[in-house]
Amino acid sequence: FYDIIEDKKEIGLVNGLAWTSVGGETLQIEAISMPGKGKVELTGHLGDVMKESALAGISYIRSKTKDLGIDENFYKELDIHLHVPEGAIPKDGPSAGITMTTALISMLTKTPVNQNLAMTGEITLRGRVLPIGGVKEKLLAAHRANIRNIIIPKENEKDLDEIPDNIKKELHISTVGNMEEVIQLVFHGDL
Amino acid sequence: FYDIIEDKKEIGLVNGLAWTSVGGETLQIEAISMPGKGKVELTGHLGDVMKESALAGISYIRSKTKDLGIDENFYKELDIHLHVPEGAIPKDGPSAGITMTTALISMLTKTPVNQNLAMTGEITLRGRVLPIGGVKEKLLAAHRANIRNIIIPKENEKDLDEIPDNIKKELHISTVGNMEEVIQLVFHGDL
Amino acid sequence: FYDIIEDKKEIGLVNGLAWTSVGGETLQIEAISMPGKGKVELTGHLGDVMKESALAGISYIRSKTKDLGIDENFYKELDIHLHVPEGAIPKDGPSAGITMTTALISMLTKTPVNQNLAMTGEITLRGRVLPIGGVKEKLLAAHRANIRNIIIPKENEKDLDEIPDNIKKELHISTVGNMEEVIQLVFHGDL
Amino acid sequence: FYDIIEDKKEIGLVNGLAWTSVGGETLQIEAISMPGKGKVELTGHLGDVMKESALAGISYIRSKTKDLGIDENFYKELDIHLHVPEGAIPKDGPSAGITMTTALISMLTKTPVNQNLAMTGEITLRGRVLPIGGVKEKLLAAHRANIRNIIIPKENEKDLDEIPDNIKKELHISTVGNMEEVIQLVFHGDL
Amino acid sequence: FYDIIEDKKEIGLVNGLAWTSVGGETLQIEAISMPGKGKVELTGHLGDVMKESALAGISYIRSKTKDLGIDENFYKELDIHLHVPEGAIPKDGPSAGITMTTALISMLTKTPVNQNLAMTGEITLRGRVLPIGGVKEKLLAAHRANIRNIIIPKENEKDLDEIPDNIKKELHISTVGNMEEVIQLVFHGDL
Amino acid sequence: FYDIIEDKKEIGLVNGLAWTSVGGETLQIEAISMPGKGKVELTGHLGDVMKESALAGISYIRSKTKDLGIDENFYKELDIHLHVPEGAIPKDGPSAGITMTTALISMLTKTPVNQNLAMTGEITLRGRVLPIGGVKEKLLAAHRANIRNIIIPKENEKDLDEIPDNIKKELHISTVGNMEEVIQLVFHGDL
Ligand SMILES: [Ca+2]
Ligand SMILES: [Ca+2]
Ligand SMILES: [Ca+2]
Ligand SMILES: [Ca+2]
Ligand SMILES: [Ca+2]
Ligand SMILES: [Ca+2]
Ligand SMILES: [Ca+2]
Ligand SMILES: [Ca+2]
Ligand SMILES: [Ca+2]
Ligand SMILES: [Ca+2]
Ligand SMILES: [Ca+2]
Ligand SMILES: [Ca+2]
Repeated sequence: FYDIIEDKKEIGLVNGLAWTSVGGETLQIEAISMPGKGKVELTGHLGDVMKESALAGISYIRSKTKDLGIDENFYKELDIHLHVPEGAIPKDGPSAGITMTTALISMLTKTPVNQNLAMTGEITLRGRVLPIGGVKEKLLAAHRANIRNIIIPKENEKDLDEIPDNIKKELHISTVGNMEEVIQLVFHGDL
Repeated sequence: FYDIIEDKKEIGLVNGLAWTSVGGETLQIEAISMPGKGKVELTGHLGDVMKESALAGISYIRSKTKDLGIDENFYKELDIHLHVPEGAIPKDGPSAGITMTTALISMLTKTPVNQNLAMTGEITLRGRVLPIGGVKEKLLAAHRANIRNIIIPKENEKDLDEIPDNIKKELHISTVGNMEEVIQLVFHGDL
Repeated sequence: FYDIIEDKKEIGLVNGLAWTSVGGETLQIEAISMPGKGKVELTGHLGDVMKESALAGISYIRSKTKDLGIDENFYKELDIHLHVPEGAIPKDGPSAGITMTTALISMLTKTPVNQNLAMTGEITLRGRVLPIGGVKEKLLAAHRANIRNIIIPKENEKDLDEIPDNIKKELHISTVGNMEEVIQLVFHGDL
Repeated sequence: FYDIIEDKKEIGLVNGLAWTSVGGETLQIEAISMPGKGKVELTGHLGDVMKESALAGISYIRSKTKDLGIDENFYKELDIHLHVPEGAIPKDGPSAGITMTTALISMLTKTPVNQNLAMTGEITLRGRVLPIGGVKEKLLAAHRANIRNIIIPKENEKDLDEIPDNIKKELHISTVGNMEEVIQLVFHGDL
Repeated sequence: FYDIIEDKKEIGLVNGLAWTSVGGETLQIEAISMPGKGKVELTGHLGDVMKESALAGISYIRSKTKDLGIDENFYKELDIHLHVPEGAIPKDGPSAGITMTTALISMLTKTPVNQNLAMTGEITLRGRVLPIGGVKEKLLAAHRANIRNIIIPKENEKDLDEIPDNIKKELHISTVGNMEEVIQLVFHGDL
Repeated sequence: FYDIIEDKKEIGLVNGLAWTSVGGETLQIEAISMPGKGKVELTGHLGDVMKESALAGISYIRSKTKDLGIDENFYKELDIHLHVPEGAIPKDGPSAGITMTTALISMLTKTPVNQNLAMTGEITLRGRVLPIGGVKEKLLAAHRANIRNIIIPKENEKDLDEIPDNIKKELHISTVGNMEEVIQLVFHGDL
């Protein structure tokens, strides 16, 4: 999947793709955990829909702790903080669902994530990945940011027709129908 | 009741029918549970009436744990998350009452639900099923989505006159007066 | 009091009378209890005044547990849910006070209430029954719903002049000054 | 002080005087307590200023339990509910401060209060009684309600000039500068 | 500092100076404590800035318990109520910071405060006293209320030029740069 | 870094730089801690973005307690209060992130901070320092306040072109890409 050998890898840090009125842009999702009592902090000027999306990702992880190799008590022994810089910019919508979930899995399993990768897609409780809007603008933004590996929802495959060919051939685009496929693409068995 | 033998079945996942200004549409209700302390999370951009409807469903289940074969302490030993994708679309009203309750029963009893089935109806605390609006639009939406088995409230039977005959003969429509009848139709004794 | 022998009786279910801009209508109050920790859930799109009225009813009951034969610890050993279908319709005002209180007493004492009965009246903490508005419209609504036994506040007796005689002679109307009289009329010593 | 020997007395029930845009009126303050954990419920469509006034009264009582002969742990062993019928009418302002405090003291000491008495005055944490508005309208309302004994703040004495003489001679008006004087007038040593 | 020997002294009661659209006025700050669990009640129609100012004062005191001779566990063994009559008047702004802090120190150390004294000044967490507005109006109000001893922030010294000489020579005005100086002026070593 | 030997140093007090519609200005961040139970108080009329920024700083510190030599249980054994005078002025935005974090680290490690220093920069959970706006106005404000040592984000280096040379040569400006560099500049190994 990743052909750029020298890519930097980070734990708990994943690139997302947002679509604003002035076009697409990349954003970073940061997740950290601390010994605690199960408090979840969601910051970065996030709207209610985006916060609910993070909660769906947490519940998905809690229902899959065995498969993911995560301590099933993490939700009550850790405090979790998920933050999306830049704090002054309001952010909302469900399209960062798989990005936030991936950041949390990386942080909880201490498995690094390639930084030359960005993803977008709504997640459901059961891990289905739903289509999102603004695919074209988001992919152009990733390209501008020199990110070459992209994950989008399977149901957005048709939107790829709109991407200029010279851009498309510089991007490695994967489509996914569920969170298991995201995990396979990002961690390929490292969990 | 179900004549489509090969229908897929899922635990904690039930199709609902919504009626919006742009017509009827199907929506999925997802329910999962996790070892926990009795927290209930209701997400998916749900309005207050829809959240109250979910709470009524939970109380109905708590008052019927013996009949349903559910551990009477589930409400304090599990965390429950009920989510309605797609998170960006605001949803409200009581008409998903029986759908949410069915998803919760399926999840708590680990009994799968046929996915070629959709239902709509307000639930009361005592399990009475009250009539809802938009029956015609909802049934057309189910038909478009290739769902063939439908449950509606008994008091909406009169609204079936408005459904074109060619549609109606492709649908198996059941009418119910209370939640017990829903359970019988969905789980036919499997609980 | 009740001359219709064959009336159906239910536990925790009592008919109220509401007065809306489009006239009077009947509504049902449902109360259930579950083993729990003293949580009180009040649902059905209820306004603040109506919720406060329910709280007044609960405090009245807590201060009278001995007289009513109710375990004095019910408020911390049970979770109580009081719901007023139909969830989509906003409801407010204090006039369902005695109805909600009666539903709670019926539920806590497991004593059934005749369903051919409807009542309206504000309750105070000490059980006084205060007058309410819309008596004429409410009684006509009860009559249309084939309910024949009615309880109204004593201070509303004067409003009975406005009811047409042919309606009035088909209704059994009792007036009450306090909750003790309501209890006597509804449960006649069965508690 | 009270010359009407046969006056009815009640525990936890005290008459207040309110001043609304349509003139003065009487209102009743009800207080009850129940074995509990220190919850304070303030209901009756009360505004924030009126609720703060009740909290000031409770703190006054907590700081004076010894003088009043009240168990100093009442605030954590009882649940207290203070309610002001009629629930549909919004109420606000600090002028029911001494009335609410008197109702609470009556309830906590189980000492009855004469019902042929009404009072008005803001209370401070330390028991000072501050002047209030609408004295004339309030006294006329009390007179119309056949209440003959009235307590008002000392600083409102000048407002008595506005009361017609024929009314004034039928009322027994006491003025008070602090809560101790209210207690002396209401309970004359019975606590 | 105080030349009026016969001044009345009170515990937990301190005069503040407010500046409203209709001019300056005096206000009293009342503080009481009760055996409890660390609850802090702030009442009197206070705005958020004024409440934050009280919280800053409490934190200042908690960080100085040793210097002040206050039990370091007071914040969890007492309930504290700070109230500003007259409850009907909205109050806001940080200028009562040193007044509220002085009332709390007086109450916690049971050391009385001279009532012929008024003060105004914002407090910071570390006890710095910041300048406030309306010095002229506030001093005239104190003078009208026959209060002769005044404390203002050092950085407001320049505003004293605006005070008429005949007023100024009847007032004893002290300026302070930090809370330690306030404490010295008010309690002169009595703590 | 600091060439002004005689600079005053304080614990838990750090200068920030704000940018308002009327130009730049300096503000002070105060942090104190008290024995407690992990409560975090954020006051000074702070907007949500600024509060989230403080929470990000706290999480950053919690995830770095070992490196910083801070007791890893500080978050549950101390109450922390972060205050930004002047309380009457609304403040918001993420640009005080590194300032608030530095104040907290100084307070938790009891290491003083030079007061002839001001800083501005958004902090992320992982300690990255993001660029902020208003660099020119902020630096002029620091200069006016006779502060000579300044820390700004690396990505704001380009904004230094706009600063007049006569000002720039009187300031010692350091640019930082992450919080570790801030810590090195402020505490140079004293932690
Ligand atoms: Ca960006
Ligand atoms: Ca979407
Ligand atoms: Ca759909
Ligand atoms: Ca409906
Ligand atoms: Ca009805
Ligand atoms: Ca009414
Ligand atoms: Ca009245
Ligand atoms: Ca007033
Ligand atoms: Ca005043
Ligand atoms: Ca100010
Ligand atoms: Ca400043
Ligand atoms: Ca910014």
